[in-house]
Amino acid sequence: MNEIATLFRRLTYGVYVVGVADGDQHNAFTAAWVMQTSFDPLLLALSINPEHFSYTLLKESGVFSVNVLRQGQLDLVRHFGCQSGRNTDKLAGQRWRPGEHGAPVLLDAAAYLECRVTGTMPAGDHELILGEVVDGGLLDPEAAPLRYSDTGDIDGSSALYPGKF
Amino acid sequence: MNEIATLFRRLTYGVYVVGVADGDQHNAFTAAWVMQTSFDPLLLALSINPEHFSYTLLKESGVFSVNVLRQGQLDLVRHFGCQSGRNTDKLAGQRWRPGEHGAPVLLDAAAYLECRVTGTMPAGDHELILGEVVDGGLLDPEAAPLRYSDTGDIDGSSALYPGKF
Repeated sequence: MNEIATLFRRLTYGVYVVGVADGDQHNAFTAAWVMQTSFDPLLLALSINPEHFSYTLLKESGVFSVNVLRQGQLDLVRHFGCQSGRNTDKLAGQRWRPGEHGAPVLLDAAAYLECRVTGTMPAGDHELILGEVVDGGLLDPEAAPLRYSDTGDIDGSSALYPGKF
Repeated sequence: MNEIATLFRRLTYGVYVVGVADGDQHNAFTAAWVMQTSFDPLLLALSINPEHFSYTLLKESGVFSVNVLRQGQLDLVRHFGCQSGRNTDKLAGQRWRPGEHGAPVLLDAAAYLECRVTGTMPAGDHELILGEVVDGGLLDPEAAPLRYSDTGDIDGSSALYPGKF
């Protein structure tokens, strides 16, 4: 791993499965770039790759869910991270339900938040989505959240950093 | 702690001291709402309270640093989090130097990133600052980053969540 990749590993994240749905289409993908940005209103920011299939569904419907993975769920990190939803129903075979606002809620997650998009901003090779948290719940109050640092280099991201500033 | 505050504690963050400087003025404050948003260019997003003294310095100079605290540095969490920089030089007595682009680098941090502001976006009671990472370094390659969950309720944030959605 080069020096800049190593440096960026000092930033701390959780691991989430972001769920999206539009009409009878749905999808979900693994993400770490999620954070709260405001208390009043309660807002989250999500950084999403606009080339992903989920991006289109999210923009059309204006809702998304953030499902908090628990420690040990590396199988779900891989499942929702390592294939495209364009030709595969990644939610098939998973335990899930539509949330109050339509975004997929993973029943095996530790917790979930459901958000309604309030704004977007270009952010380099990604786009920042701002969402107001309109619903959510603890699915397992005892579960400890999975940390991004626990996932090693499952996502292959260490290769995406430049060699120098 | 109410249910919504408990729910939001399932999101995972690090703990950072964000440094700002403009001319001969400088300041630094504790923050958890920091994340990467892009690989190319290398961008970070920071959510900042526009009422803070540091906000003015950041907007004037267009640069900021993100200093990654290491495990055990709860004294620095409190020092940079629990007072205003408007009337106090919070960096006095700390080991620090100006970074390549002028933002304060804490020499006792685990690592730092220095950023140049590329965009801003209103985000409820905060503002999202996008910054291109233009410099940075590992100050102690062995140091494990402090996690926000290790800080308990030092910042008193549990009282800032609504009782229901």
